[in-house]
Order: sequence, then structure tokens, then C-alpha cells
Amino acid sequence: MATPASQQRTRLTDLATQAGVSTATVSRVLNGKPGVSPAARQAVLEALDLLGYERPERLRMRSQGLVGLVVPELTNPVFPLFAQVVESILAENGYTPLLCAQEAGGTTEDQYVEVLLDHKVDGIVFISGLHADTTADLARYHALRSQNIPLVLVNGHAEEIDAPSISCDDVAALDLAFRHLVQLGHRRIGLAIGPDRFTPTQRKVRGFLDAYARHLGEGEAEDHVVTTLFTVEGGQVAAAELIESGHTAIICGSDLMALGAVRAARQRGLSVPDDISVVGYDDSPLIAFTDPPLTTVRQPVRSMSQSAVSALISQIAGQPAPRSEMLFLPELVVRGSTSVAPSS
Amino acid sequence: MATPASQQRTRLTDLATQAGVSTATVSRVLNGKPGVSPAARQAVLEALDLLGYERPERLRMRSQGLVGLVVPELTNPVFPLFAQVVESILAENGYTPLLCAQEAGGTTEDQYVEVLLDHKVDGIVFISGLHADTTADLARYHALRSQNIPLVLVNGHAEEIDAPSISCDDVAALDLAFRHLVQLGHRRIGLAIGPDRFTPTQRKVRGFLDAYARHLGEGEAEDHVVTTLFTVEGGQVAAAELIESGHTAIICGSDLMALGAVRAARQRGLSVPDDISVVGYDDSPLIAFTDPPLTTVRQPVRSMSQSAVSALISQIAGQPAPRSEMLFLPELVVRGSTSVAPSS
Repeated sequence: MATPASQQRTRLTDLATQAGVSTATVSRVLNGKPGVSPAARQAVLEALDLLGYERPERLRMRSQGLVGLVVPELTNPVFPLFAQVVESILAENGYTPLLCAQEAGGTTEDQYVEVLLDHKVDGIVFISGLHADTTADLARYHALRSQNIPLVLVNGHAEEIDAPSISCDDVAALDLAFRHLVQLGHRRIGLAIGPDRFTPTQRKVRGFLDAYARHLGEGEAEDHVVTTLFTVEGGQVAAAELIESGHTAIICGSDLMALGAVRAARQRGLSVPDDISVVGYDDSPLIAFTDPPLTTVRQPVRSMSQSAVSALISQIAGQPAPRSEMLFLPELVVRGSTSVAPSS
Repeated sequence: MATPASQQRTRLTDLATQAGVSTATVSRVLNGKPGVSPAARQAVLEALDLLGYERPERLRMRSQGLVGLVVPELTNPVFPLFAQVVESILAENGYTPLLCAQEAGGTTEDQYVEVLLDHKVDGIVFISGLHADTTADLARYHALRSQNIPLVLVNGHAEEIDAPSISCDDVAALDLAFRHLVQLGHRRIGLAIGPDRFTPTQRKVRGFLDAYARHLGEGEAEDHVVTTLFTVEGGQVAAAELIESGHTAIICGSDLMALGAVRAARQRGLSVPDDISVVGYDDSPLIAFTDPPLTTVRQPVRSMSQSAVSALISQIAGQPAPRSEMLFLPELVVRGSTSVAPSS
């Protein structure tokens, strides 16, 4: 179908504006001409997609192969975020990502892995998978490695598995959150966290206990840790218990738990942050729009994903990948859910 | 590894509480004994997953086959929601879902479909795919049908494609939102919407114009429609324009746009809902936690997903699937972003 010249011009202009390049560059990319930097080419592709135009046939690349990406669920918005970022980096590298998202009662990690193997994936990235569960049998991962399947493990280091491992530094995260609350004058600080058989939970608890000892002296720090589930309801239950026992500040194991903690405070007629300060974990998408906007510890999702994909691609290329865990530093994003401790 | 009897008991009790069944039922399910209803069995499986226990080997089913699930992106939280619900229903029916999530500059719908075909999927569910883009070439879908691949199209009916089609009733949605605002006394009502080449956009615009004529009489209803993108930034730009031209209420094409509209109002020192009322669309997860909690039109995601999977499975079984579009009625969820029109 021929496009009138005027429409063609509008489209070039739109694309150039969106991509931040000249119309000449857009035209070169669309016509497959040389002399365009990879960054400009990628910007034009993104602009085509963002504005919803179809890519011309000649801009399509043949996939280098399949990579499985296993995430535990999509309810916590940090997992769709990881999925989207890892997928786009895989695609930039010519791999087609297949996202395996679990849900309670649905397809399990093992079932997904079986399917991925049946379909000869080139490698698998596990995000918060069973490798993070200290009670899970690691034989499943040893079996994959003995078949020479390249793996990368994100957020849940298991020393025994022969694979690169990438995590957000949970101990550092807890120290960031704790220090922020102490500086605001809080002394009754609690931790609301999910099941303790997961490595990230154990590390966050350790970080909390370390920070407690460092900032508030010895004491019975364990009394300030309440273990429930990593959900809104889990946060609500844990926070209720911490508020009842006189805490003025609650650090949560996930942003969802933090939203539950805000709800628990309000149910008791308390204000966040005037009466109770709440810190989340993840900095999930949209969390800046909550009431109040959540102070939270941001996982560096993009750099973690970049390293995960690099480590996987090295292995696929037959190069050795680092075996020691790569720890990524989180940052504290201060918004409206934390404030100075109430003077009691 | 043997588990001590006391731990075993705790686990049975936990599972029974979570699943809402007796410990005897949990035990029957875990040991593969008969005499348990499918619903109770599913509840126990979900409890195992929710509490993070591994499923015993004997509870694993062999997959019946693969189904591709193509979504346009994961940034708008309604897409992870659709993905999660469709996946769990597929899994309950024995199918393994492979989620193909696009991102600007990443793997395209056509590339995903190629991979799915290479891997002999049993069928494909397209959610807001190119079928919803009136400028896209439908030959790609005709080609799939001529290869006898069962398809289901969600939210973007294209009469010409030989496949069942399932949509949220956009015209009804706009009437719900419009009527709510008129009842609150608003007369200057605008629509902030994404690109108009998509069927759902065209239908929402039609719904808006119909509602305008019905509730406010003829006039230049088109002047109250601003077209940008379905993103936070898109909503912000469109809302700024509508606010400048004196509107007191803005209906948005997505919840993300609505968050942008709230931001645009606040940038002008206006309050939502005291000065400007905002209605979203989708009722995405977490949207109830925003500031203010968003009044929005909820897509019936679960029943739409249920019908999509049924229609796909019928086709896989060689039964004819309905060819007429199934329209699902949305509902208006009134929260804190709408209020009575300001007296000018």
C-alpha cells in the first residue's frame, strides 16, 4: 500500500523527534543504508515500536537462539520489571527471550525447565528461583550444568551451583534503610519480612541485626523481626504486630509488604509518616505514585540485568563466566513514607 | 531427606489453613490418594506454592503442550495481570504457557510468532497485538490460520481474521465513566487517549462521543478529545491541554495516563479531586494504592481470560470456536480521584 508523501514526511518527523536523531538518520535506518551508529539505529527501532509503527521487513534480525527467563510471579511489580529489562537486553543481543512466569497452583519452575530443555534453549536466567530457597534440592541445577546448559542465578546465591550469580546487596540495603531511620530519630525499628528459608530473607535479617547492633547497641534485636509473607497482606499482619509492640518505624522486605504496613497503620488511626515511618524494598514501577509515595530501597535492576545477560552470553559462547557472586549496591530513594520519629 | 514428625505436622497444619481444607485432605492430596475434589486438590497445590513448598514428584503433571501468549509490554500493569491469569488457567488445563512480552526496541510480535511456530505451539493468544492496529497487515494472521494454528484475539477485534475475539466493551466503559462524571455535576469533560489507529482507541472515542451527545447534547464533542500515548507522560501532556482549555473532568484511556493526568493537575497547583476529577481505565494491580486512589473502569480480566482459554482449547480439540466477538462488560470502581464539579 503506497503512502502519500505528506504522511511519509509526518512519520519521519515523528520518528526523528521521538528518537532524538535527524530525519535523514531515520531515513537511512528505515532503508537499511550504512553509516548509522548502532545507538542511533537502536533509538530509531525503539521509536518505531513506541509510536507503534511496524518495522520494515529488512530491519528484522533472525534470532540467534532461545533463552529461558524464569521468574517466580508477576504480582510483585519488580518481576515484570526484571523480565522486561532482561528481555530487551537479550533481544538487543539477538536472542529471543521466553518468559516463564509462575503463579500459585500453575506451572512450576521444574515444568518450565523441562519445556525449555525440550525446546533446546541456549541458556536460562533464573530470577528468585528455587536456587534462592535453602530448603530446595539443588540437584535440579547440577543436572542442568551436567548437560552443559548455561545458567545465571539472580537474587539467591547458592555457592554449590556452578553458575554465575548476581544479587542486590541485601545487607547493604538494610543498613541504608536502618541508618536513614536512626537519623530521623527512630529507636523502635522493626523488620517485616517474608519466609526465612529464602537466601534474600536471611541476608536481610542479618543486615537488620548487624545494623541494629551497630546503630542501637546490642539488645534483643531478634525481637524486632516479624516473619510473614512477601505480600500486601503479609506486610499488613507483620506491621500490625510491630505497631502493637510499640515500633515507630518499619522496614519491609518488599514494596508490597510496605503497602500493607501503611494499611495496618491507618487501620489503627495512625498516620504514615507522622506516627509510623515505613521503608519498602525494590522500588517497583508505580511505587512513586502511592499514598504516601514510598521511601524504598532501589534494586539496580538495569545493571543487574545487563550483567546477567553478559554472563549468560559469555557461557553460550563457550567462555568461562565468573563463579563468584556479583553483588550490586542498592540506593535509598527517600519519598514521603518516612519522617522524624514522633516525640512520645 | 527425612523430615521430623513435628515439622511434618506444622507443615500439614499450615497447608490446611492456607487451603481452607482439613489436614486429612492435605495429606490425601500430598500422598496422591483418591477421594479429593478437584477444587480441594487445586487449593492444596496453590497453598504449597504460596507457602513456597516444593510439590511432591507425584503431583506433577506432564504438559499437554505449549501455548504462546503474546502481550505488547509489561509496563502497563494490566498486561502482567492478564499474563498471570491466562497462564494460570492454561496451567490448570495442562498447557504450558510461554509468555512473549515485547518492549520498545526488543523482540517483535512477528519474531515471537516465528519462534513459537518453530517450536510447534498448539495455539496462540494475542493480547492487544497487531490485530488491534488498524494499520497493520492482517496477512500474518491469515497465514497462521491457513496453517491451522488456533488463535484467540483479546482486546482488538478484526472481523476479517478467522479466530474468536474477546474484548472489554469500550463503548460501555466510556458511558459508565461519562455518566458518573455528569452525575457529579461535571459539564466540561475531556478524553485523554492513545494513538487512534488502535481499535480500542477508536471504540473509546466513539463511546465518548456517543455519551457526550446523550448526556450533554450535540456540540463539538471532538474538541474534547486529546490523542497522545497510553503512558504516564502521554496522560500528562493530554491532561495539561484539557485543563488549559477549562475541563474539570478527564477520562483517560489507561490507568497510567490517569496517573499522568493527576500529575498535570498538581503541576498547575490544582487538587484531584477537588478541582479536577480523573477516571482511569483497566483497574491495574496496585492502582487502589495511588494518591488519590484512582476511580477507574475495571476490565473483567478473569472472565475474559477464562473465555480466551476455553475458546483456544476448543479449537485445539478440533471443535469450532465462536467467530463473533464476545464483549465483556466492565464496571466502574469509584475511589478517590473523582468528586463533585467545582462551582465556578
